Amino acid sequence: MLKSISLVSSTLTSPPKPRTIPINFIPNNAQFFSSHESNKTIFFKASIFSRKLCTKAVMSETPENKQLVKIGAKLTGPISSKQLLQVVQTAAETGAQVVMEAVNRPRNITYKGLTDLVTETDKMSETAILNEVKKHFQDHLILGEEGGLIGDSSSDYLWCIDPLDGTTNFAHGYPSFAVSVGVLFRGKPAAASVVEFVGGPMCWNTRTFSAASGEGAFCNGIKIHVSQTDKVERSLLVTGFGYDHDDAWATNIELFKEFTDVSRGVRRLGAAAVDMCHVALGIVEAYWEYRLKPWDMAAGVLIVEEAGGTVTRMDGGNFCVFDRSVLVSNGVVHPKLLERIGTATEKLKTKGIDFSLWYKPEGYYTEL
Amino acid sequence: MLKSISLVSSTLTSPPKPRTIPINFIPNNAQFFSSHESNKTIFFKASIFSRKLCTKAVMSETPENKQLVKIGAKLTGPISSKQLLQVVQTAAETGAQVVMEAVNRPRNITYKGLTDLVTETDKMSETAILNEVKKHFQDHLILGEEGGLIGDSSSDYLWCIDPLDGTTNFAHGYPSFAVSVGVLFRGKPAAASVVEFVGGPMCWNTRTFSAASGEGAFCNGIKIHVSQTDKVERSLLVTGFGYDHDDAWATNIELFKEFTDVSRGVRRLGAAAVDMCHVALGIVEAYWEYRLKPWDMAAGVLIVEEAGGTVTRMDGGNFCVFDRSVLVSNGVVHPKLLERIGTATEKLKTKGIDFSLWYKPEGYYTEL
Repeated sequence: MLKSISLVSSTLTSPPKPRTIPINFIPNNAQFFSSHESNKTIFFKASIFSRKLCTKAVMSETPENKQLVKIGAKLTGPISSKQLLQVVQTAAETGAQVVMEAVNRPRNITYKGLTDLVTETDKMSETAILNEVKKHFQDHLILGEEGGLIGDSSSDYLWCIDPLDGTTNFAHGYPSFAVSVGVLFRGKPAAASVVEFVGGPMCWNTRTFSAASGEGAFCNGIKIHVSQTDKVERSLLVTGFGYDHDDAWATNIELFKEFTDVSRGVRRLGAAAVDMCHVALGIVEAYWEYRLKPWDMAAGVLIVEEAGGTVTRMDGGNFCVFDRSVLVSNGVVHPKLLERIGTATEKLKTKGIDFSLWYKPEGYYTEL
Repeated sequence: MLKSISLVSSTLTSPPKPRTIPINFIPNNAQFFSSHESNKTIFFKASIFSRKLCTKAVMSETPENKQLVKIGAKLTGPISSKQLLQVVQTAAETGAQVVMEAVNRPRNITYKGLTDLVTETDKMSETAILNEVKKHFQDHLILGEEGGLIGDSSSDYLWCIDPLDGTTNFAHGYPSFAVSVGVLFRGKPAAASVVEFVGGPMCWNTRTFSAASGEGAFCNGIKIHVSQTDKVERSLLVTGFGYDHDDAWATNIELFKEFTDVSRGVRRLGAAAVDMCHVALGIVEAYWEYRLKPWDMAAGVLIVEEAGGTVTRMDGGNFCVFDRSVLVSNGVVHPKLLERIGTATEKLKTKGIDFSLWYKPEGYYTEL
């Protein structure tokens, strides 16, 4: 169990200075910037510091009587969506090259050795991606799973980077995992790319997904579309369970049970970006998960929407990448899934579970 | 819900003559030969017929104070294990060719069309495999997922064939699924091959696993070994949930929850033969499931054991392919998994859940 956390200032001008404090010293109103691994560093803004680092709480919108709006950006500012897409895809593929080099290294070594391989690959992939982005756009804001927030918070562009989504699978050589890069314009996804690692030992391969807002979704350059299945009992579904085993986690175990009972099956593969791309590819009908981070979702949600799918929060409300839950589907089965998923999520809200926005970099302007 | 079943005589000499009767007409002591799909034909032995067709109930052994014995055959009779392995692998690869031809056919058609594709592929794959086996061994007993039992029940050799393991995944174009062929000598696995379909749309590929008793396990011709992880908290696990949502199913949902809580994760991929091969490959530490059939298990269990792993029933007792539950692991983590899995299974037994042997063809001689 997590007993203490390391506090790190994550701006470019002040290099990280870790300081470990017992977890019960953390104020109740502290807002976390947690990474995927509970044993990794946790970044957070807390009032015990003289400056605010990263996040700002914004209450979620209520879903009642609201028309769902597209999650993709309508505009991309002075940079064309085509140019953003080019850089986003090159960046993801550059990260994927780093990961591919590590894929076949022996894993049956000491646990420390395994941890090193994962951490090192994660960091090297992120560095390669960052370099690619900064080569083209020096002043953009960048949120990386490993490095936290860097760049200019007054930028309209926010890059959300997961250099290795599905680290547990990667550590075990188990497909699938991915490199995920998405860029937002004023808070809404403008372009996205996910490079998925498939196959596993003896036959590793990759598959590249990409999308620009309003211009469709592609896999290896071929246009893709979500499935047309509109019945839950004919749907194949997929979900994920985060590292925090809280009330939302327990609720999702219940949802897993319910949908395993009534659908054609619920898969559990272990990489959010991959699962979302599988919805876009039409091989599963829907995916949902609580507690994801912007770098897990920014690319995948746009790829689903551009493949003709629907993206909402798990309570059915309008989604943004700073949200704490996501349901993506082929669209036609969405309302039927929400009958159970939405109801379960509303129950969590009445129990006081916080679904307000998080991870929204302070000072970053959005049109959400 | 299943309202009626079709009764089929499944011997070579008497071709199938389906007859549909309401399910509440079936005697309580009927023993089922159910297929993977509830809407498919169900074979069963029932006392309402003049002859016994297939199965014989044999009580399971109790696990207490018993030394675990290897599940693989010590002898292979007049046919060398090398020859059995050659035929088993050629047969699996012949079936896989049929499946590969169907893999990229469009799926977003009518549901009826999809069902036809699955049923047709399943049957064509089994026919191709049967032809390959019968070309070499005309008098062997063969148990196919589709065709039921054929051949000579006095043979020492029993072929267990799953022409398409993971039909739901296949139907959705979702990896993974497999062709699985195992041959038993006097009830114990002698040779096995599983051809796994990996990757999915845009990058389908196959990976061939094979093993002969006492001669190691191989993937694409390269010797493979289970992982060395001996801690549950460092293990990646995988399980499955069958089509019958009974007490054993509910117990496994609880096990899924417990192990998701304490391990590095529980994957749910949807094809038993594939999951077992992944244990053999060392990319997951263990797999378990209730209610599998001999054609799901015969190949996978031998491949795991020959890769250095351990195979038992879920109550920890000695396993045979006619059993109703299986736990395969890398061996070193096995006792720790049984602390939960064995206990949960014992509870089911005290509730009267029947774990006696099933699917053992009547008249087939075994040395179990």
